[in-house]
Amino acid sequence: MNNPVGTELGRMGLVGIVYHPHKPEAQALAASVGRWLAEQGVASVVAPGRDGDQSQNPVVSRMAELSLLIVLGGDGSTLRAAGYAAPHGVPIFGINLGRVGFLSEADPENWPTQLAAVLRGDWWLEERLMLRAYVERHNQKLAEFVALNDVVISRGRLARVVRLGLYVDNDYVTTYIADGLIVATPTGSTAYAMAAGGPLLWPRLPNFLVIPVAPHLSLDRAVVLHQTAVVSVEVNPEHEAALTADGQGPVSLQAGDRVIIGQHEHRCLFARVGSSSYFYHRLMERFGYWHPQAASG
Amino acid sequence: MNNPVGTELGRMGLVGIVYHPHKPEAQALAASVGRWLAEQGVASVVAPGRDGDQSQNPVVSRMAELSLLIVLGGDGSTLRAAGYAAPHGVPIFGINLGRVGFLSEADPENWPTQLAAVLRGDWWLEERLMLRAYVERHNQKLAEFVALNDVVISRGRLARVVRLGLYVDNDYVTTYIADGLIVATPTGSTAYAMAAGGPLLWPRLPNFLVIPVAPHLSLDRAVVLHQTAVVSVEVNPEHEAALTADGQGPVSLQAGDRVIIGQHEHRCLFARVGSSSYFYHRLMERFGYWHPQAASG
Amino acid sequence: MNNPVGTELGRMGLVGIVYHPHKPEAQALAASVGRWLAEQGVASVVAPGRDGDQSQNPVVSRMAELSLLIVLGGDGSTLRAAGYAAPHGVPIFGINLGRVGFLSEADPENWPTQLAAVLRGDWWLEERLMLRAYVERHNQKLAEFVALNDVVISRGRLARVVRLGLYVDNDYVTTYIADGLIVATPTGSTAYAMAAGGPLLWPRLPNFLVIPVAPHLSLDRAVVLHQTAVVSVEVNPEHEAALTADGQGPVSLQAGDRVIIGQHEHRCLFARVGSSSYFYHRLMERFGYWHPQAASG
Amino acid sequence: MNNPVGTELGRMGLVGIVYHPHKPEAQALAASVGRWLAEQGVASVVAPGRDGDQSQNPVVSRMAELSLLIVLGGDGSTLRAAGYAAPHGVPIFGINLGRVGFLSEADPENWPTQLAAVLRGDWWLEERLMLRAYVERHNQKLAEFVALNDVVISRGRLARVVRLGLYVDNDYVTTYIADGLIVATPTGSTAYAMAAGGPLLWPRLPNFLVIPVAPHLSLDRAVVLHQTAVVSVEVNPEHEAALTADGQGPVSLQAGDRVIIGQHEHRCLFARVGSSSYFYHRLMERFGYWHPQAASG
Repeated sequence: MNNPVGTELGRMGLVGIVYHPHKPEAQALAASVGRWLAEQGVASVVAPGRDGDQSQNPVVSRMAELSLLIVLGGDGSTLRAAGYAAPHGVPIFGINLGRVGFLSEADPENWPTQLAAVLRGDWWLEERLMLRAYVERHNQKLAEFVALNDVVISRGRLARVVRLGLYVDNDYVTTYIADGLIVATPTGSTAYAMAAGGPLLWPRLPNFLVIPVAPHLSLDRAVVLHQTAVVSVEVNPEHEAALTADGQGPVSLQAGDRVIIGQHEHRCLFARVGSSSYFYHRLMERFGYWHPQAASG
Repeated sequence: MNNPVGTELGRMGLVGIVYHPHKPEAQALAASVGRWLAEQGVASVVAPGRDGDQSQNPVVSRMAELSLLIVLGGDGSTLRAAGYAAPHGVPIFGINLGRVGFLSEADPENWPTQLAAVLRGDWWLEERLMLRAYVERHNQKLAEFVALNDVVISRGRLARVVRLGLYVDNDYVTTYIADGLIVATPTGSTAYAMAAGGPLLWPRLPNFLVIPVAPHLSLDRAVVLHQTAVVSVEVNPEHEAALTADGQGPVSLQAGDRVIIGQHEHRCLFARVGSSSYFYHRLMERFGYWHPQAASG
Repeated sequence: MNNPVGTELGRMGLVGIVYHPHKPEAQALAASVGRWLAEQGVASVVAPGRDGDQSQNPVVSRMAELSLLIVLGGDGSTLRAAGYAAPHGVPIFGINLGRVGFLSEADPENWPTQLAAVLRGDWWLEERLMLRAYVERHNQKLAEFVALNDVVISRGRLARVVRLGLYVDNDYVTTYIADGLIVATPTGSTAYAMAAGGPLLWPRLPNFLVIPVAPHLSLDRAVVLHQTAVVSVEVNPEHEAALTADGQGPVSLQAGDRVIIGQHEHRCLFARVGSSSYFYHRLMERFGYWHPQAASG
Repeated sequence: MNNPVGTELGRMGLVGIVYHPHKPEAQALAASVGRWLAEQGVASVVAPGRDGDQSQNPVVSRMAELSLLIVLGGDGSTLRAAGYAAPHGVPIFGINLGRVGFLSEADPENWPTQLAAVLRGDWWLEERLMLRAYVERHNQKLAEFVALNDVVISRGRLARVVRLGLYVDNDYVTTYIADGLIVATPTGSTAYAMAAGGPLLWPRLPNFLVIPVAPHLSLDRAVVLHQTAVVSVEVNPEHEAALTADGQGPVSLQAGDRVIIGQHEHRCLFARVGSSSYFYHRLMERFGYWHPQAASG
């Protein structure tokens, strides 16, 4: 399953570096990474990441020129970077400064070793499905969203249920009475969807899933769909409802709104230097269920 | 398990009738019930129920004189009535005008038959545990709440987790990273707690339970506690958190707040005229799992 | 997603009919179907289905000549037919005589209408993934199995756990301590895997899943895999363990055995005459969660 | 909730010691414990535990004289000891030689410290509910069982469902189509019932619960019952079914059998020297969810 698209050292072009704007150690580390790359003969451009509009971000504005985007931060930083790196086919290499770092390939200690592997072409490319969502109101397309983890339609502040009708490829499936509904990618299957009781999707699957949060006398199972499926969620909130994408938002929804969700036309790319089986190892360690010796005990 | 505390017709004192203030049919039905009671020689006092302050409600102000409180509405109406009927030991008799009516004993068609049974003493008294909760901030006791279903501490509008530390009788139990935490009575075990994956507690049990909503790498099981247990939830929200009791509220919580929850000193009383096994029947019918003939098929 | 590979009436070749050997009405109905086909100018061959060896079954022995295989029975009959129809690319058309009939396209009342649609070419072909499994003991390949629903490795008669190590594509994933482990196709995702808490896989997905039954302090989520994944389960039973495939077996397993499971090289084909959305409708009706009007209510 | 029934050193009477018959270190440790007790002036009687008939066991035959029963083994040894210690009101003190040891109070390293605490009266008595079960066939009472963890009615060797009707206090509740049904005590709520998805019952609760294993379109929630409830399970297996109690058995069941389960008239007693909150600590450590500092972080 490896995708060995190694690039030799001499041919690595411009590298972008974005760092978490509010973590004090991030800026200094970004500078260190830049210096280290320069020592290897690789040019780089550095800027803080930010929420919202990225039009002034010097890394983002040169995305089309980049060979690699290094992201210094937690999974939140990586999720945001996915939105602007994927359309340009730029692979992401994450250095984890957060608590979780499921998407990262290095940490503040081992990054020179890991990056050196990338520079000498000893890496592989991982593709991950992303979602595109938009809100349809009175037959007009409103706000549009990109998500590497999930699109969530849920109750507002009050702990009361919303009523959501699910359609797949224009076929009615069922109606949920629940706190909310999660449409998640394989990447997102280990995030909020997992907390809601969902299955783990092997990360490179071209599938996505739908799962409710706290369903009341409604379907309580995840439904796993094909990559080409188009999901439509009809919003019938008796109380306020809202949409978030990768934790960004929320955007208020009104009764009668439809949220349309399908695969994004671009995949998010990650530069990986470890084994292609890293995912299971990392996941089971986190759960406390990694004990290979037990298997043959 | 029956509690046959039948009261003879001649001795039934004043009956209170509260009706849903926004359901058009409720007021007319309340008047009908009052007339019917008068025909049986029973005096009654009638008023619309309301949210919030009940000090001007003529039924509530005479609660100490009542022999029975008839509630016309859905389960929401009954939940609110529990708060003012229980301290006076007045049994509730619900006539269901809502969709659910799990707590009711009659509907708009069969109430004369059911009420007649009560008047001739052919009823039993069901006791249900209620919760009392208050917020502790900077060692001060803030708002206090009564709940027949549940006390919920949960995220605000944004679909992001909160971090909640659970203590039982001052012993630390665990920390939840979740959408929220539900502390539910047996009555509430068929409401939000059930949607969160909780067990069903036989309704007259003197127990209550704690269960998280969408826990992320945290304990995902309900914990069932003794009636005398005192639960303390330490709020460490990175984002906004809020408390609701029986769906009322929400009240905003701050980092460092503690919510203290234990049994209420009064039980909520219900006048029941059906079989003491009504609960299983009603519940399984609702689930679609009531098929006695299948058992011996 | 439809696969309209309609076949005109005149070109429908020999049709096989297998019927449930122990249901009294099945033989008569098989004869009726054969007569009806003859009236339409279509030749058929009829025989009872059976467990185990099919070498003497006159329908099975002519499988290579068949245009269609009609199965009269429940889902169990269809599961068995899948094993001998799929390698020859013969589509199955089920007439349900059982309680469930999730895989069937007709029932004893409406089969002439449904079959007529097939004969006039008004049908589509549904492909469903099957599994192939074998047991490896002391580096020798033992018994081999085909499954349209699932391969189950589980405890024997005693209600005690087994310990099972899971490998995917030779990468260790985790070790389960559980009653058993289910490897299920999308078709099987609505059978035993669903009872174990698994997700629903849209039936035409080229994926399969792994899910434990009653896991004890082990991974309790389904893992959804790619069609090319090869699963290996290492058996470390402290007590007896056994393998079943589509409910057939059980075959005893010994400590140290490995069960190797992957997609079958053939897909099981079904002739469908209804809407391509039949699956959600049928499933939600069965759950009691089909109420389209509620969606827009 | 502590039950401080401390006994002074001089008044500790005869102590029984039973040890796991097949663990080589158990016999030597039993002798060490006996010598240590003698040094403290306390007499003891030692014997290996065994399965089945205990009539020749010299410890069991003197149970009425004992002040304390020390059990050297895993939780299985403690479960068996519960059956003969509880009727005589003899508290159990477990020294864990097994993997789990949830019920134990000491291990091979710290037992002298823990036992010394008992001898000087620095302990408390924990009571735990036990179950009594019997099979009723053709109106005759067959085999009878005692269980500290659970009574399980389940499928036999073949991985096929059984159909089980549940009655509580003679009221029909529902019918399960499942791998089996677990009736568990609070002690058992952290064993098989937990694997089946059940809630945690605080160990000193006077409640028990019913939960199915892998229910198929049947009630999938635990039902928590009052201590006085009498559960009756009607067995309608299409295939073989069997009963186990605390993992002992299995006993074959026939269609039409009823299994009657209720609380045992005696509680199982444990001598505890640690904090009364030991349970949460031990449980959450085992889950990996014990991080008190996180609560206030």
